[in-house]
Amino acid sequence: MANEATVYALETIHKLVNSAPIVHVSFNQADSPFPVTLPLIGQMGSFARPSASLGDPLDLYLHGYVSSRFFSSARDEAVPVCVAASHVDGLVLALSAFNHSYNYRSAILFGHAALVRDDDEKRYAMQLITDGVVPDRWANTRQPPTAAEMQSTSILRVSIVSGSAKIRHGGVSNDKHDLDHQAVLDAVWTGVVPMYSAMADPIPSPCNKLDMPPYLSEYLNDFSRESKEHSIAAAEKK
Amino acid sequence: MANEATVYALETIHKLVNSAPIVHVSFNQADSPFPVTLPLIGQMGSFARPSASLGDPLDLYLHGYVSSRFFSSARDEAVPVCVAASHVDGLVLALSAFNHSYNYRSAILFGHAALVRDDDEKRYAMQLITDGVVPDRWANTRQPPTAAEMQSTSILRVSIVSGSAKIRHGGVSNDKHDLDHQAVLDAVWTGVVPMYSAMADPIPSPCNKLDMPPYLSEYLNDFSRESKEHSIAAAEKK
Repeated sequence: MANEATVYALETIHKLVNSAPIVHVSFNQADSPFPVTLPLIGQMGSFARPSASLGDPLDLYLHGYVSSRFFSSARDEAVPVCVAASHVDGLVLALSAFNHSYNYRSAILFGHAALVRDDDEKRYAMQLITDGVVPDRWANTRQPPTAAEMQSTSILRVSIVSGSAKIRHGGVSNDKHDLDHQAVLDAVWTGVVPMYSAMADPIPSPCNKLDMPPYLSEYLNDFSRESKEHSIAAAEKK
Repeated sequence: MANEATVYALETIHKLVNSAPIVHVSFNQADSPFPVTLPLIGQMGSFARPSASLGDPLDLYLHGYVSSRFFSSARDEAVPVCVAASHVDGLVLALSAFNHSYNYRSAILFGHAALVRDDDEKRYAMQLITDGVVPDRWANTRQPPTAAEMQSTSILRVSIVSGSAKIRHGGVSNDKHDLDHQAVLDAVWTGVVPMYSAMADPIPSPCNKLDMPPYLSEYLNDFSRESKEHSIAAAEKK
């Protein structure tokens, strides 16, 4: 009926990271007992072997507004980080509160983050990350990046040490003593509510002069439809 | 046009946590250089003062499948944790890749996590967390929890030390040199694509005997509608 499993397949893990609009990146600071967790944008890739497939070992490239303190450590040495990419696919509503759950997909990676200094690698990562948000977007923006943009963009490369994914899909799991209890069955609605990320109609900016180009409209339509279909398929999986 | 700000108002921070289906909780392990980040379910509350409002100082209650190692530390002493709750509200597509952004709301809390041992506090937290997923769900499930359920449910209470939120809303920010460049304006679609969480039609379980009760159907309808409206309002905000 339901299935919750840990997965070590690289392709599964990498797809979960690449399809998450944000990942949560955690690291430690020398003078604090608390780890710090920041939402950043990330994509898996290989600058040394750009044709590598999602099933190959890959690096994680990160972009985002991270504390200057993080980057000053990363400037000197690699910083140990944990990266989590999570998708909630549905609410699983059981007879007892205890048996409630989510359908979800969650990847976690451990690795060492370092600042990318090489301009070619930085451009590679900027394109990878931009096209991760909207495929083909990089080629459809003003190119090339200016010297000032290159200088003020910080990209982290995380060399992955280990990782895994946890996935739960399927329907409701109830205990036998609840299923045998007619008054409980008569009182509690049970089932799965699929949950997914959707895009609303795009809002052009005042300076926009273009109709929506196909690379963008097709992606946005596909995104909402596939995301919805995925959450329903997860609920119906045995 | 656009606005990105750090916010310290407790009500704002607490609402971001409570409306996130999952939060990311990070902690350290004694024998590893890497922090660990796990997706858990959390809600802000006060067992000592259940009538406290969202603008008051509150504890964070967490439930989820965390490593036995985390709980064995939390059994002995409070564990320093960082908790992040993030919402992506839209893709902000500018003329240059560099000026791309997300509309988002992100809260981060630092605190000390400890296992809840008192059964009354545990029940309080279980109801708080269940009703955080679907309002009124607790009262509409089989009650009370069995002794076995009470025993095998682990709840963490995080005493909050500090926290803040970062929020970005509004439209596209472009550089003047791009806006003055007619060929760029003629080539690049710019605008905001609102992004939100939606619920698909619920899928009743094979054992379900009920029509969907109003507390559930109304919540699910409201959730998708309010979530979509919020993402559009965020895009249109000045």
